[in-house]
Amino acid sequence: MAAHYHSFRSSVPGLILLLQAAFILLFYFFISDAEDSLPTFAYAAFQDVNHMLLFGFGFFFLFLRRYGFSSTGFNLLIIALGVQCSVLAEHLLTFLLQRQDQDDLNRITKAVMSMTAVVTSTGAVLGKANPVQLILMTVVEMTLFHLSRRLNNVFLQIPDKSTLMHVHLFGAYFGLAVSSRFSEPSPRSEKSKRTPKSALFSMLGTLFLWVFWPSFNFVVAVGSKGRAISNTYFALAASTVAAFVLSALTSNDGKFHMTHIQSAVLAGGVAVGYASPSIEYPWIAMILGLLASLVTILGSYCWQRCLNPALKIHDTTGVHFTFGLPAVLGGLAQVVLLVVQNWDNLPRLGSLVLTQVGAFCLTISVASITGFITGSILNLKVFQSIPASKYFEDQFYWEFPHLAVGF
Amino acid sequence: MAAHYHSFRSSVPGLILLLQAAFILLFYFFISDAEDSLPTFAYAAFQDVNHMLLFGFGFFFLFLRRYGFSSTGFNLLIIALGVQCSVLAEHLLTFLLQRQDQDDLNRITKAVMSMTAVVTSTGAVLGKANPVQLILMTVVEMTLFHLSRRLNNVFLQIPDKSTLMHVHLFGAYFGLAVSSRFSEPSPRSEKSKRTPKSALFSMLGTLFLWVFWPSFNFVVAVGSKGRAISNTYFALAASTVAAFVLSALTSNDGKFHMTHIQSAVLAGGVAVGYASPSIEYPWIAMILGLLASLVTILGSYCWQRCLNPALKIHDTTGVHFTFGLPAVLGGLAQVVLLVVQNWDNLPRLGSLVLTQVGAFCLTISVASITGFITGSILNLKVFQSIPASKYFEDQFYWEFPHLAVGF
Amino acid sequence: MAAHYHSFRSSVPGLILLLQAAFILLFYFFISDAEDSLPTFAYAAFQDVNHMLLFGFGFFFLFLRRYGFSSTGFNLLIIALGVQCSVLAEHLLTFLLQRQDQDDLNRITKAVMSMTAVVTSTGAVLGKANPVQLILMTVVEMTLFHLSRRLNNVFLQIPDKSTLMHVHLFGAYFGLAVSSRFSEPSPRSEKSKRTPKSALFSMLGTLFLWVFWPSFNFVVAVGSKGRAISNTYFALAASTVAAFVLSALTSNDGKFHMTHIQSAVLAGGVAVGYASPSIEYPWIAMILGLLASLVTILGSYCWQRCLNPALKIHDTTGVHFTFGLPAVLGGLAQVVLLVVQNWDNLPRLGSLVLTQVGAFCLTISVASITGFITGSILNLKVFQSIPASKYFEDQFYWEFPHLAVGF
Repeated sequence: MAAHYHSFRSSVPGLILLLQAAFILLFYFFISDAEDSLPTFAYAAFQDVNHMLLFGFGFFFLFLRRYGFSSTGFNLLIIALGVQCSVLAEHLLTFLLQRQDQDDLNRITKAVMSMTAVVTSTGAVLGKANPVQLILMTVVEMTLFHLSRRLNNVFLQIPDKSTLMHVHLFGAYFGLAVSSRFSEPSPRSEKSKRTPKSALFSMLGTLFLWVFWPSFNFVVAVGSKGRAISNTYFALAASTVAAFVLSALTSNDGKFHMTHIQSAVLAGGVAVGYASPSIEYPWIAMILGLLASLVTILGSYCWQRCLNPALKIHDTTGVHFTFGLPAVLGGLAQVVLLVVQNWDNLPRLGSLVLTQVGAFCLTISVASITGFITGSILNLKVFQSIPASKYFEDQFYWEFPHLAVGF
Repeated sequence: MAAHYHSFRSSVPGLILLLQAAFILLFYFFISDAEDSLPTFAYAAFQDVNHMLLFGFGFFFLFLRRYGFSSTGFNLLIIALGVQCSVLAEHLLTFLLQRQDQDDLNRITKAVMSMTAVVTSTGAVLGKANPVQLILMTVVEMTLFHLSRRLNNVFLQIPDKSTLMHVHLFGAYFGLAVSSRFSEPSPRSEKSKRTPKSALFSMLGTLFLWVFWPSFNFVVAVGSKGRAISNTYFALAASTVAAFVLSALTSNDGKFHMTHIQSAVLAGGVAVGYASPSIEYPWIAMILGLLASLVTILGSYCWQRCLNPALKIHDTTGVHFTFGLPAVLGGLAQVVLLVVQNWDNLPRLGSLVLTQVGAFCLTISVASITGFITGSILNLKVFQSIPASKYFEDQFYWEFPHLAVGF
Repeated sequence: MAAHYHSFRSSVPGLILLLQAAFILLFYFFISDAEDSLPTFAYAAFQDVNHMLLFGFGFFFLFLRRYGFSSTGFNLLIIALGVQCSVLAEHLLTFLLQRQDQDDLNRITKAVMSMTAVVTSTGAVLGKANPVQLILMTVVEMTLFHLSRRLNNVFLQIPDKSTLMHVHLFGAYFGLAVSSRFSEPSPRSEKSKRTPKSALFSMLGTLFLWVFWPSFNFVVAVGSKGRAISNTYFALAASTVAAFVLSALTSNDGKFHMTHIQSAVLAGGVAVGYASPSIEYPWIAMILGLLASLVTILGSYCWQRCLNPALKIHDTTGVHFTFGLPAVLGGLAQVVLLVVQNWDNLPRLGSLVLTQVGAFCLTISVASITGFITGSILNLKVFQSIPASKYFEDQFYWEFPHLAVGF
């Protein structure tokens, strides 16, 4: 196998180089000079979202004890490729047709935010996909995500910016569907376990994501920007509190469990993303945060006990309950809020609700179906998927200064 | 004891849940929709202060080798609860009476800054207080801090924003007073020692605090915002230089001592906080930074040799000399500056000095007295304070993936 | 030796104190109150550059397994001294003559950016220079860098801001020239090797630098600010992709090598710095990023095989190929772009090209020659350079909580 993979490995640089050459050519032909404008806070917001993607997820994925180099390294590689792909896909699908111009910064900010979908998906196959599979998945998913946004925009008249709200939903279910086609690691594998040290690193990543989440929702928000920040903060706070409560309640002896807390503290941010600018009072955001945390912890419990053994889907980082379920809750909450705010105008209410539910179902279907197909293609023999016994192992991809030692 | 504590531990979630429910109810009744406004740099400033609290202190407290999960985890929990409490306390004490409105972002920024007092205090009892004690302390201290600000505002006519300057002073002395009621850990305890690795993590936290300190003073500053940043930077630079000098001078063989450096590099930022916008020349800020560093290192020396054995106050993180003493120096410096700048107008000078000294004494008295009372209450039998032999131990609160190993 | 160095060590605090006193005096006499102005995004940009210097390089230098305290600690000390020195040097050389005023924030931002030169240089002598040598180097290099900027400004009419673009070029070649005068460490030294853990820390530093690089070029950019950010991002992305390709191609069995990736992912940011605001299309930035990565990895290969053994220059962090060579490429690219954009106006083209080439050669010559002289002076017997066997060792400078253990 090692020798076999070796010869395959030598094709990795070729693939990457080919992609990069294609990107440059496409940029040459299609991406014209953008307007130069600098709205003052767009700059700070761009930096925050960029941080979130690189550090937040970079650290967050560090929980695998023997996979630190790959977690941060491949994350960087995927982002570098994906952002270029995202700019191209968005331009070709949206702007080429309509000749709308946008400024430099706005273009990259959107590309970076769309990449969140891919990074979320990689969480589900972390340690199981080889670099070739990751790179192909990035390119395919980025294109499909922009396609799904465009469908939402054309058929359901969702404003361009609001289609970005579905990024976690799309990422989580695409990732799960891809992961369902990979063989499961042995449940007793030592390598997928956390050590106290690697869990601590991952906790620091969680803190990064927590701090930058208000910026994320701030960028997506249409309308009340300040309110989006405030509501996101309160939702995160409430889901943090609930995470500790639920973690203690679900453990055997009232102790806290780091894994629960890591996923549940972020649930509020995901859930409130859909409706953050239209929530009028902080207490609503707080209740949403509580519920999101509850959904995450219950979801994680059910997943491990019932669904995982039945469905045979292994989800390394738990993107399903960390990002997927809270996003579903957020979609529901948005519909409930629409009903409450527009119940005196039934025709308008009907069309609003239909649009939102339609966008939601469209996104989740596109993500699941195309994810399943992508996963099946990626597991063709030609892509040399690594055997389950070699999962979660840096040494497979990296030269080590010394012999590798565990965290 | 373990079984005993076990039954107690099961009441933790109940307490947290009760608090969160009370917060949501209070938000429902009292916190109305805020104005939505977004002053462009307020956003960046809010993010910086938020960072400082979560990462800065989160990392800074990582020096205890077996307490990493609790240091970061409980810090996050306390901030999540405390910020909600702070928004409520400020609103009920200040704005309900006067019907003043403020915008969303401003409201949270102030709440986050006020939380610095609580996080500073937890530094003094780090590893000694159990989660219930920490949570109660957070709620009580947050309320008392806003009460103290309100007293300053009503009786001494200190502008609302300037009352936030006392946040480190209040936090340090409240924390010390609380800590005086906890039993001391055995001085030979291995668990409270630093390892090179944990000291390195803590140093990274110090760097975070260092970088974000100018933003902190920038937010508090009334008037010359740019000058506040510049003066804070020069004060921090001077105290960093002095920290290295003094650390080498006070050690046996001219080597540097990481603990000294960690506390003393920040001293300048604390000290200059009171007067940063009114210092006209950078050299004054630099001298203040030098003096702050000197006070911190001498304070740490005296504390460990003389005061600690006499007063029996154990201060885990050294908040007294890191935040308390430099804040006292800063208060003095502000008075000296007032005298220098207004000596030709004696009546005005008199009233200014009296106001500042009054605010200073009021804050420090409220902090010490209420801290002492809070500490006494927290050590009632019902709160099951943990025995000194179990201090600084993650395993008491957290489930571990494997057996816990040291840093 | 230990005893010998001990007596020398006791002179360290004296030197630092003397310098700090001199700085305060000079500030007292020369630095007047600055204008207070706060251009909104200048604040965010300042924070980003400041972060880059403290964390980015602080983490980036953590790859030496037994030198973590010194890497972060001395980095902080040098920045604290250097920024003061930079403000003074810039003021005395430039503004005293012309009585131009600038605001607070602008003054510090420039000082912090200039410090990048010194921090880059320290990378070359990391672990080999003692604190006294580092401090003297900081003061001398900072003055020389501002002198070099002033020469560019006066004789070649380069705008003041654009002279900052040469900061990596100056830093890298000054550092190399200084390093050439230090004795080489034993090539088999265990202490200069990386461990997986220390390489991971260093990778996190690389991520910090990567994320903040657009801000760096944004501050230096004259004219199209938004375009500078966008082009820098695309250049970084392309060089990241190329780094993975080249790392796999140059290793024996197609594995990635962390050291290659760490230096090459940043190459694009350095190279594009010169021309970021004048590059009209992203594809040009991407090609520049690819070339920069290529130059870095080839440079690193040639350096270790041919030049290093011949020239006997040991470069701890590899600043030559990480910052030096991409800066040379960036200078060349700028000339090529000038030729392409102005080929229809030959007289103007001639003067533009001459100016740029002149500035380039002037900077590199001043850096190399003065670096060589500085290195020779620093290795005089009076400065007690440490013997090669004691390189890369924290215990030489720091008191340890326990016995030092490796990373």
